[in-house]
Amino acid sequence: MTAQESSASDGPTTELVASVFARDCTSRAAFEDVTGKWASLALIALSKGTYRFGELRRRVEGVSEKMLSQALQSLERDGMVTRTVVTAIPPRVEYTLTPLGERVAEQLRALVDVLEETVADVDRAREAYAQRTT
Amino acid sequence: MTAQESSASDGPTTELVASVFARDCTSRAAFEDVTGKWASLALIALSKGTYRFGELRRRVEGVSEKMLSQALQSLERDGMVTRTVVTAIPPRVEYTLTPLGERVAEQLRALVDVLEETVADVDRAREAYAQRTT
Repeated sequence: MTAQESSASDGPTTELVASVFARDCTSRAAFEDVTGKWASLALIALSKGTYRFGELRRRVEGVSEKMLSQALQSLERDGMVTRTVVTAIPPRVEYTLTPLGERVAEQLRALVDVLEETVADVDRAREAYAQRTT
Repeated sequence: MTAQESSASDGPTTELVASVFARDCTSRAAFEDVTGKWASLALIALSKGTYRFGELRRRVEGVSEKMLSQALQSLERDGMVTRTVVTAIPPRVEYTLTPLGERVAEQLRALVDVLEETVADVDRAREAYAQRTT
């Protein structure tokens, strides 16, 4: 982990504290990964259970194969998602959240709940902004 | 608002329900705005109070003037942030969260808390992934 030095400790036991505000902290990289346009929606979808690639792609409207594949790879790398190849005929690939992925997905879902609930406020704000700026 | 039709109601009173999974729903656009690389950090920083542009730029390590300015504009447009020009010598511009922005920032902060707390898990997952794939 590369992280910001804690400002609270100036002594010889200077402690490293994770901070999303620090440019090189892993937590900022992970934050960028999980809030990525497609990774975030994939995480939220997977909180409902295991998905095959194709099912997940249909759930996350508008994503291309390539983009979804990249998003899932970054989530697998960060330990949020497990990819399992099921030996069947034909073989299939399934994606499941890890316990860490579940924790993150829960927070993203809570954020989405606020945005879905307040969508009318955002629409009104956008209309008012358009009138102010034109 | 453009949104997905509720699958729960098939009758004549088909209701529109906001869904972040629907490509054209305002809630998806708002979700993309608030989870943007710099907008998300700006929102979290502003939950500590009002900031001037330069202060905010120092807080959000690594952001360029242009990127921060664009992020703040999208947040202002969505009704999350208020931009105030203070008539002083020299005049200054201050940014504050709206009540909606505060709700969103609170959720983002909760997500960041999880990621800062689990940064060692992500580091371990990344190491294991690198060993598996090389």
